[in-house]
Amino acid sequence: ILDGLLRPGQRVPSTRVLAIELGMSRLPVLTAYEQLLHEGYLEGRVGSGTYVCAAAPDTRLRAKARVEMHPADGKRTQVTPGRSEGGVRPFRMSLPALDEFPQPLWGRIVARYAHRLTPAHLAYGDPAGLAPLRLAIAAHLRTARAVNCEADNLLVTSGSQAGLRLSAAVLLARGDRVAIEDPSYPGARTAFTAAGAELVPIPVDEEGLDVAALARHQRIRAVYVTPSHQYPLGFSMSATRRLALLDWAARHDAWIIEDDYDSEYRYVSRPLGALQGMDARNRTVYVGTFSKVLYPSLRVGYLVVPPSLWESFLDAREALDVFSPTLYQLALAEFLDEGHFARHLRRMRTIYQRRREALLEGLAENCGDRLTVLNADAGLHVATILSGNSDDRAIVRRMTARGLAGTTLSGCFIGPVRTNGLLLGFGGFDEHTLIDATRTLAEVLNNRRG
Amino acid sequence: ILDGLLRPGQRVPSTRVLAIELGMSRLPVLTAYEQLLHEGYLEGRVGSGTYVCAAAPDTRLRAKARVEMHPADGKRTQVTPGRSEGGVRPFRMSLPALDEFPQPLWGRIVARYAHRLTPAHLAYGDPAGLAPLRLAIAAHLRTARAVNCEADNLLVTSGSQAGLRLSAAVLLARGDRVAIEDPSYPGARTAFTAAGAELVPIPVDEEGLDVAALARHQRIRAVYVTPSHQYPLGFSMSATRRLALLDWAARHDAWIIEDDYDSEYRYVSRPLGALQGMDARNRTVYVGTFSKVLYPSLRVGYLVVPPSLWESFLDAREALDVFSPTLYQLALAEFLDEGHFARHLRRMRTIYQRRREALLEGLAENCGDRLTVLNADAGLHVATILSGNSDDRAIVRRMTARGLAGTTLSGCFIGPVRTNGLLLGFGGFDEHTLIDATRTLAEVLNNRRG
Repeated sequence: ILDGLLRPGQRVPSTRVLAIELGMSRLPVLTAYEQLLHEGYLEGRVGSGTYVCAAAPDTRLRAKARVEMHPADGKRTQVTPGRSEGGVRPFRMSLPALDEFPQPLWGRIVARYAHRLTPAHLAYGDPAGLAPLRLAIAAHLRTARAVNCEADNLLVTSGSQAGLRLSAAVLLARGDRVAIEDPSYPGARTAFTAAGAELVPIPVDEEGLDVAALARHQRIRAVYVTPSHQYPLGFSMSATRRLALLDWAARHDAWIIEDDYDSEYRYVSRPLGALQGMDARNRTVYVGTFSKVLYPSLRVGYLVVPPSLWESFLDAREALDVFSPTLYQLALAEFLDEGHFARHLRRMRTIYQRRREALLEGLAENCGDRLTVLNADAGLHVATILSGNSDDRAIVRRMTARGLAGTTLSGCFIGPVRTNGLLLGFGGFDEHTLIDATRTLAEVLNNRRG
Repeated sequence: ILDGLLRPGQRVPSTRVLAIELGMSRLPVLTAYEQLLHEGYLEGRVGSGTYVCAAAPDTRLRAKARVEMHPADGKRTQVTPGRSEGGVRPFRMSLPALDEFPQPLWGRIVARYAHRLTPAHLAYGDPAGLAPLRLAIAAHLRTARAVNCEADNLLVTSGSQAGLRLSAAVLLARGDRVAIEDPSYPGARTAFTAAGAELVPIPVDEEGLDVAALARHQRIRAVYVTPSHQYPLGFSMSATRRLALLDWAARHDAWIIEDDYDSEYRYVSRPLGALQGMDARNRTVYVGTFSKVLYPSLRVGYLVVPPSLWESFLDAREALDVFSPTLYQLALAEFLDEGHFARHLRRMRTIYQRRREALLEGLAENCGDRLTVLNADAGLHVATILSGNSDDRAIVRRMTARGLAGTTLSGCFIGPVRTNGLLLGFGGFDEHTLIDATRTLAEVLNNRRG
C-alpha cells in the first residue's frame, strides 16, 4: 500500500484466497489483515470484502522512502557529540579536585544503595527531595553558611542551573525585568532569558553589586547576585551593600536570587555567611549545588525558598522534571550524615590552597608581563586581566588549540565589554599540571606578540 | 554590632587593648578585626583607630533576631513532605512492575560503575547525553518503535516531563497556541503552560486526535499527541489520522510533539510504530522515557529531534539542567547493549498481560454495575467510565481514605468535563493485590449509594 502497488479503494484478495496463493495456513493471513485494518490501511469487513483505505495521501510514499534510509542497526559505533564541555583540560572552570575525590568511599556507599533499592525507592519520589537529604543539607547550610532554613523550605534540585531555571520560572513572567550583575555567570543569563525575562545589567565593583546603580532602575522584579564570590571577578559583597540590597528588595517587593555556587572555599579570610541569613523579610531565594564541592556529574543542587513561594516552587518542579533520581539522594544523605562531607570539605580546603598558590606562582613567573591577577581570594578560579586589553576570545581559541580550556572574561559581560581577561580554573588540576599549563599559556600569550 | 551594643560610628578598642582586656594573645584579635573589616562591619585602619561602620541600618537587628530563631542543629528528624506522589498504592498510575524489576542484576551493573567512576566521568558531561547510551537508545527505537532516528539526533533527558518542558521551551514562545488532545496528560499541560503557551483543546475519539477539528483552528504552532496509546482514554491513532496529521503539520509549518510514554505494551494487537517514523518532513519531536519500562526514580528519558532544531534543543538543555547524571547513563547503556533491556521488556509483557486480565476480571466481578471499562488495549492502566456520570473527584477522595490511589478522568479535561471516570493503573501490582483492590473499590463505589 505504501509503495502504491495497491491503490486506495482497491479490493484486496480474501484471506482464504491469499492463504492458498501463498501456500500457508489462513491464521497468519487473518492476523495480518486484522492488524492492517486496525492500523487503518485496510477498510471493510474481513471475509465480506476488504479494500485499501480510501484516504491514502501521497505522503505515504515519501514517508516510506525516508524510512528506507535508515542504516542497518548495530553497524554504527560513532556519534557526533552534542557539545563538548571542555573535559578536564587545565584551566577548565568550575571543576573541583576530581582526582582527590574520595571515590572508593563514595563508590561503596552508592553501590550499597544500588543493591538495596526497594520498590518504594524505584517509584516516584517527592518533588521536594528525599526527607533525610533535605534535613542533612539544611543542617549543613545553617552551620556552614549561616543560611536561615529548615528542611521544610529546602528543595533538592538537579543542580544549580535547574535551581536558577526554577527560580526564573517562579519569579519572572515574560517581559519582567531582572537585574543581574555585569559581568556575571552566563548560565544565570540563559536561565533568565529562557524564561523570557529582560536583563538589566548592573555594574559590580570590589564591594559587589552596585546597589545605588540598581536603585536607579524602575520595575525590577528580581535581582541576581553572587555575594560570597562574585562570578567572574571574585569579589565578595560587603556587609553594607548586603544590607542595602536587602532594604532595596523589601522596599520594592523585589526578589533576590542568591547564587552561592562555590562559597565553601575562601583563602584570605573566614568564609562569609550567606546573604540569605541576613534577610529577615524572606525576599531571598538561595541557590546551591554539590557540583563544586563533590562533583558535577552528580547533578544535585538545592534551593532554599521563602515559605510564601514554596507551593509555587513545587509546581514549577513538577512542570520541569518532577523529581531527582533517588539513588544519589540516598547516598548523599548518608555521605552528609556520617560526616564524610564535612571531612571532604576540610581536606579540599588545603588542596585548593596549594593549587591556588601554584597557579599564582606560575602566572607570576611565566605570564606576569601579559596578565594581571584581579582576584584569587576564594573559590576555584582566578580572575585575570589581559595587558593592553587584548582580545580574550582570540587567546582562548589558541589556548584550546594547545590543549588548554580557557574562559573569556569578555563573555561574562551583558552590556559593553569593559575588560578582556582570562578566567583560569585551578580546582581540578594538581600543582605540576598548573605550573606546566602556565608555561603553555605564556607561549600562547607571547605568540600573540610575534 | 548587630545587637546594637556597638553603635554606628562608635570607636572600638585597639587590638592591643582588647587583647589585654580579654587576657589573650593579640593575633586572634587582629584576625577577628580583619574579618570584621573585610565584612564591612568595621571601618578604618587597624592600629590607627577603628570604628563601627557608619551605614548600619536597623535591619541588622531584625536579621539577627531572625537568625536566633533557628532550632538547635541535629535535633529535628521530621520534615514535611513536599508533595506525596501516591507511593505504590494500588491503582497508582504510570507505575511499572517494580516488584518484578531485575534489581539484583541492575544493582550489580550500577555498583560496578559506581566503583569505577573516573575523574572524566565525574566532570561535566555532554548535554546531549553519553555517546554509548545515545547509540543504544537510537538502535532500540529504530527496531522496536520504527522511529526514524540516529544517535546524532537523540538527546538524553531527565525523564519525559523534562523532554516536554524542553520541547515547550524550543517550540513555543509566550502566547503561542499549542493544540492538545482533550482529555490529555496533565503533565503535558503544565509543561506548555509553564512556557506561557495558550492551550487549544482538540477532541479525541476512538481514532485518536480529531484532525479535522484541529484543522479548523488558526495559528497553531505545535500539537501534542499520544498516538500509540492516547492518554488517558487508551485509543491508538489510526493510520488515516496519522497521515492527515502529518499533512496538516507540513502545510501549516507546525510541529508535532509525539509523547510515546508507554507504547511498549500492547495486548490486543502488535504494537504500532511511532508516528515520527512516518514523518518524511521532519516536523515531529519524539518524547520517550524509561520511567514506565524500567522505573521512575531512574529519571532518564530521551528526545528524538528534527535536525533543524538540534542546536536549539542543546541550548535549551543547557539553560534547563545542563546534562544528566553520568553514572546512570553508563549503567543504562550496558543494560541496553547486553540485551537485558529487551529481555526485560519481553518478560514484562507477560506479567502485564496477567495483571491486566486480573484487573479486568476483578472489575467485571466486583464493580461491573458501577463502572464501564472504556479501553484496556495497551499500556499500564485501564480507562473506565463511572455509571451515572457520578463525580469522580469525590470517589477518588474516598479511595485515598481506603488506601487506594485513584486518578480522575475528569482531571484530564481542559475544556468542559465530558466524562467522569477512573484511571486505574495495574502495572505496579500483582494479581492478588489487584483483585483485592477491586473489592475495596466496589465498597467505595457502593458506599456512595448508601
